[in-house]
Amino acid sequence: MTNDEQAIRDLVATWMKASASGDLPTLLELMSDDVVFLTPGREPFGRKEFEAGFQSMQGQVSLKGSSAVQEVHVNGDMAYCWTKLTITMTSSTTGESKERSGHTLSVLRKNSSGNWVVERDANLVM
Amino acid sequence: MTNDEQAIRDLVATWMKASASGDLPTLLELMSDDVVFLTPGREPFGRKEFEAGFQSMQGQVSLKGSSAVQEVHVNGDMAYCWTKLTITMTSSTTGESKERSGHTLSVLRKNSSGNWVVERDANLVM
Repeated sequence: MTNDEQAIRDLVATWMKASASGDLPTLLELMSDDVVFLTPGREPFGRKEFEAGFQSMQGQVSLKGSSAVQEVHVNGDMAYCWTKLTITMTSSTTGESKERSGHTLSVLRKNSSGNWVVERDANLVM
Repeated sequence: MTNDEQAIRDLVATWMKASASGDLPTLLELMSDDVVFLTPGREPFGRKEFEAGFQSMQGQVSLKGSSAVQEVHVNGDMAYCWTKLTITMTSSTTGESKERSGHTLSVLRKNSSGNWVVERDANLVM
């Protein structure tokens, strides 16, 4: 495995941990300024909407998940990665849990500091 | 617009036309041998499953659609493209139509013949 591939696998693991612990600053470091998120049944959204959505969930819902990387393909300073994602969302008030799963396809870019960031992301979890 | 970007926009247009006219050979030319399609609520699938699914629809359902390209980004022999897709499926027996829409994110590769092909594709139309 190349260093780039390992770095991208590490990014996915860090993303999952930061999502679970509510660590928004870390998540924002892992995406480009012009990131676009595509999800089913919603208009595409960027960094600001991600931030607002994430903050609105804090204290309401806790997220736990696992992301099984299926493939990482690096081509110079661009890469793609797809995963199988399973998320358990638990309501902080009722304790009720819902599990959802699906795949993701992400396009990543190595930025000028040499770090990989998510640039475009399709999340098919319903 | 570069030649590569134009070629990818042409690919999207050709894909839509071939889908509508049931032209499977053209569609197969526009994807890599190892293509992976990701869709909501279904396991990832490749060329053979695409072919079988497309053939099973012929005579049952007609497809018409439009694909509005939102962005094409080329990086050497790799590129990505995302679109807003609207599809109308009409039953050949009942004449009943359903419209669905959503986004797609595709990763493309320039093959050894210099032609762009779809390599990984996430289709968020539900």
